[in-house]
Amino acid sequence: MVSPDPSSFEICSIGGNLATNAGGLCCVRYGVTDDYVLGMQVVLADGPAVRLGGTTVKNVAGYDLSSLFVGSEGTLGVITEATLRLRPAPPASAVIVGSFGSLGDAGRAVAAVMAAERPAALELMDQAALNAVEDAAPMGLDRTAAALLLASSDAGGGEADRIGRHFQDSGATYVARSTDPDEGAMLMAARRMAIPCVERRGTVLIEDVGVSLPRIPELLARIQHTAQARETSIPVIGHAGDGNFHPLVTYDDADPDATDRARAAFDDVMHAALELGGTITGEHGVGMLKSHLLQAQLGDDVMELNRRIKAALDPHDILNPGKWV
Amino acid sequence: MVSPDPSSFEICSIGGNLATNAGGLCCVRYGVTDDYVLGMQVVLADGPAVRLGGTTVKNVAGYDLSSLFVGSEGTLGVITEATLRLRPAPPASAVIVGSFGSLGDAGRAVAAVMAAERPAALELMDQAALNAVEDAAPMGLDRTAAALLLASSDAGGGEADRIGRHFQDSGATYVARSTDPDEGAMLMAARRMAIPCVERRGTVLIEDVGVSLPRIPELLARIQHTAQARETSIPVIGHAGDGNFHPLVTYDDADPDATDRARAAFDDVMHAALELGGTITGEHGVGMLKSHLLQAQLGDDVMELNRRIKAALDPHDILNPGKWV
Repeated sequence: MVSPDPSSFEICSIGGNLATNAGGLCCVRYGVTDDYVLGMQVVLADGPAVRLGGTTVKNVAGYDLSSLFVGSEGTLGVITEATLRLRPAPPASAVIVGSFGSLGDAGRAVAAVMAAERPAALELMDQAALNAVEDAAPMGLDRTAAALLLASSDAGGGEADRIGRHFQDSGATYVARSTDPDEGAMLMAARRMAIPCVERRGTVLIEDVGVSLPRIPELLARIQHTAQARETSIPVIGHAGDGNFHPLVTYDDADPDATDRARAAFDDVMHAALELGGTITGEHGVGMLKSHLLQAQLGDDVMELNRRIKAALDPHDILNPGKWV
Repeated sequence: MVSPDPSSFEICSIGGNLATNAGGLCCVRYGVTDDYVLGMQVVLADGPAVRLGGTTVKNVAGYDLSSLFVGSEGTLGVITEATLRLRPAPPASAVIVGSFGSLGDAGRAVAAVMAAERPAALELMDQAALNAVEDAAPMGLDRTAAALLLASSDAGGGEADRIGRHFQDSGATYVARSTDPDEGAMLMAARRMAIPCVERRGTVLIEDVGVSLPRIPELLARIQHTAQARETSIPVIGHAGDGNFHPLVTYDDADPDATDRARAAFDDVMHAALELGGTITGEHGVGMLKSHLLQAQLGDDVMELNRRIKAALDPHDILNPGKWV
């Protein structure tokens, strides 16, 4: 299997995964797309098709150009072929659910789990997100919880039990461990359904911010504050074990004022991540929606470094022109 | 802990690990240095100190410049600070030893294990290497074996037993599982001692070639052939689970003819790796010893791409000048 596990696995393509260095639910244990790319063929701006990397697991011959093209969003070359590393499928996993009375408790539970364990997934849904899922597909989630954490564990050796205890010690109001694989799969499927479920409630701007694990409670508090200040609904889901969250800025796009507030909220959340030392994008990329804030994250010198790389490989700016770089 | 696990862990530095993208014994399960670098400070050729990456686990804001500098061997900038990802220490591991009557059987055992399991280490010593270790520190290794495989397993769930069965099914003449942690540690320590033990026998040129796993038996046969043809001793050790081997070209540097034969053998082994679709260096880097064969691996277009990156970042060639790029 290829381990990265985008929520969009039913519709996404390997090429898109490479162009964005896609992540997903299992990345917290198994890594992101770039960790599985051994080599690729790329057509360069000035014509030649070149082979980067190779077929070996380890390779340090020359610069790691393959990693430079992964996540470059089509601005450096056209990836026409890739050699990926396959790993044996992981063993069966147990799913652990924790309900929390506050986002702060959930955030602290994430830090506690990650300091001691290596879960295969550690996902968060806040109250608005889990209610959106429960509306669309009732499965008995606790609608009153401020946040739900969903962990999956395939490490054996009692890890699932220990994760449950970390939830409890961090103040969970309810902890359950699913031993039935179907029930566990259903719970993880609920998390994967969250974005389409929230999209039933309005137009959604999908955030993708990231912070270091100790800053998660602060980030979640800042998102809540933004939702109130901008009078905009922002259900939050996220790959909590990686500190990577998708606040879903939801609004009525027929209402110009609501649209303005949503856009302002979208920027507020990115600014909050930056003020906490984080990133405006953990796995989705910069694209057009976030390009105006990239410089705020990278600074002038690093933006200039990005432009020098771009100019060295695509001097006439013919590849995905006019984008962030 | 930081997971990469160079054999030189007692003397190497984090800076050196970053400059070469160092690997080691545990990489087969836990990845190489670059997999643990979240961000770094780099002083560029034209002066400014810049921060690349950050403190988050996932980050796709701009090009992955951090991965470009990791393994760049000092040719792009001076890394002055790094933020590494720490993971919880892995659980205790079992060590499985297999003796094989032929290098081909050992190579097939590696492919069989890696297709089904995720060992924490899967190391090989050939007869010459294990005898050099046994000479220096007798611990009862089977001196008549063509090759010894040493696996360590921390995954639980019966993986250690299954690895033993893969060894047996691939024709191992002897398989033992160490349940005593001290004995297991001693066996892995024997593997780590191999290079200094071989160095007692002469001057050593340390190879670092890599091939895809199915090509391992062919690579080992080619190395044996080279040793005979060049009348040069080449004990082989390696991170077999990654297809990354360190043939130790051993010679008397007071003998000009032996020295010439050793250098020719060193090149022969790299050519063999290239002919098998592999790499001249898996984890040690190009440096000065291998620069004359880098173009043979990368081809003209990719060499040119490397030079364009170098010129974009260090136009006056003041950083580690005159090296491979």
